[in-house]
Amino acid sequence: MIANTPNPPYYAVIFTNELTVHTEGYEAMAEKMCEMALKEPGCLGFESVRNGLGITISYWESLEAIKSWKANTEHLEAQQQGRDIWYKNYKTRICKVERDYGFERNDDQQ
Amino acid sequence: MIANTPNPPYYAVIFTNELTVHTEGYEAMAEKMCEMALKEPGCLGFESVRNGLGITISYWESLEAIKSWKANTEHLEAQQQGRDIWYKNYKTRICKVERDYGFERNDDQQ
Repeated sequence: MIANTPNPPYYAVIFTNELTVHTEGYEAMAEKMCEMALKEPGCLGFESVRNGLGITISYWESLEAIKSWKANTEHLEAQQQGRDIWYKNYKTRICKVERDYGFERNDDQQ
Repeated sequence: MIANTPNPPYYAVIFTNELTVHTEGYEAMAEKMCEMALKEPGCLGFESVRNGLGITISYWESLEAIKSWKANTEHLEAQQQGRDIWYKNYKTRICKVERDYGFERNDDQQ
């Protein structure tokens, strides 16, 4: 689902990754971290897709909120497990969303 | 594949979308647009995944390069076809990448 973010400016963390073959426990942990993050102050939403390559984007009110979530103890443990077991590689990009616009179909062609 | 972007700052266009059931011609057009964009001055790379929800992120040297690609004649026609036929909804977010970091596994555990 497309995240229902407020008017810019706000922040996005683009997390692009590929998994190793050792994926046991990964999906459950990813869901748990997403649920936890959504309860953090300043978290505005998530968009996540995997099809081989995985892209997860989380949206945040401020850089401080991003920093605080990155340093969350359970999240730190999950990040370490990710590097130990699950991720073949990843790239994290911290972005300021400067502008956005959208489109929603309003006819009956779905 | 994770895009091989230079050191920040650079720009990202996050394009999150859902398709209608009328997907004929979509994949070919999406690939053509990606190939064309990669030839544009200032385009740094793409990351794209679909699994129901589609996320395509393109990376750019400058806002001017993004604006120029958005106004490309063939791209404008593709955008119109997208709104007429293919997209149920989409959101485009123009972002400045302020910081990035990555991880690459260097043991034999793939």
